[in-house]
Amino acid sequence: MAYIDVEDGLPGITGLLEYRLDSAKPIRELTQILLRGASSLNEGERELIAALVSHKNECVFCSSAHTAAANLLTGDSGISAAIKEDIDSAPISAKMKALLKIASKVQESGLSVTEDDVEKARKKGATDKEIHDTVLITGLFCLYNRYVDGLNTWTPENPKYYKSLARRIGPKGYLRPPNGYEGKKYYKEED
Amino acid sequence: MAYIDVEDGLPGITGLLEYRLDSAKPIRELTQILLRGASSLNEGERELIAALVSHKNECVFCSSAHTAAANLLTGDSGISAAIKEDIDSAPISAKMKALLKIASKVQESGLSVTEDDVEKARKKGATDKEIHDTVLITGLFCLYNRYVDGLNTWTPENPKYYKSLARRIGPKGYLRPPNGYEGKKYYKEED
Repeated sequence: MAYIDVEDGLPGITGLLEYRLDSAKPIRELTQILLRGASSLNEGERELIAALVSHKNECVFCSSAHTAAANLLTGDSGISAAIKEDIDSAPISAKMKALLKIASKVQESGLSVTEDDVEKARKKGATDKEIHDTVLITGLFCLYNRYVDGLNTWTPENPKYYKSLARRIGPKGYLRPPNGYEGKKYYKEED
Repeated sequence: MAYIDVEDGLPGITGLLEYRLDSAKPIRELTQILLRGASSLNEGERELIAALVSHKNECVFCSSAHTAAANLLTGDSGISAAIKEDIDSAPISAKMKALLKIASKVQESGLSVTEDDVEKARKKGATDKEIHDTVLITGLFCLYNRYVDGLNTWTPENPKYYKSLARRIGPKGYLRPPNGYEGKKYYKEED
């Protein structure tokens, strides 16, 4: 049970974003810009960064949600599984490998990133903006993961929930639905 | 030197926020809401959370900036120094001690926070919203610290810079100045 009084039936981040709508708005907007806005990294690639960082932070809600979103958007659930095991042997571009290695470092600490890490990404074709966005997306999920677990929010166990969630955030993104969520009804619908 | 091409003369977060204005806008808004919006925690108390988390993440730019802001807003530089040494003996309220202990846990991982940590804060008078905001401010600075150090931004060494910065963000807060910043001129002015 969450440490604060969030609405029943709203798992993980969904209850927190409804708990304080004024702070939720810029969090949602930042996520929409970074994960769904114009970018030379496709949406699946950006969800892979979110999934990897959340996995490394051991945030089960966020890791399950963004793994499901990455699976939907890349069309191949083998990729998200592979990057969590070993980035080097995962079936992704050399540029994405270098960017995910930077994300892995940033998840630990910004201070872990070296000039060499950045140089390797650049040699594989990464632009300044892609490097910037990789670092900022990682920072954003370090926020989300702490927010969700630091307040001990509800983590559904049914994988169907995350698949259903992915079918919404995949195409629709992260802005608040026009009427928000409706407590248990929301979960039941997603489920 | 920063790993990406930020404008010369804009230290730490300032160069990053000018680098990508669209993502900077919600980051600034979230910070303004959490650190300067209406709250039963005063602005100095909220800057203490930011200073402590940045210190624990070893982000010298953010730690210096928010320590200077906390010193200005609390009117006592002994407080920020004391919480970094030992929260229990610091000259702050029992409620703030309990909240800073939660922040310290969240800085490591959201999973570190226990029901007992939250119960202790509640017994000292902390509300749900104060507990929520403490966790979210901590998450936000885990983002900032990784953003600033993960891209190796410039960290001025002159303490006068941070004092000058604090004189701006103390009363004016975190929204973008009407005309942004003007490169070296900005630093020179702050300096």
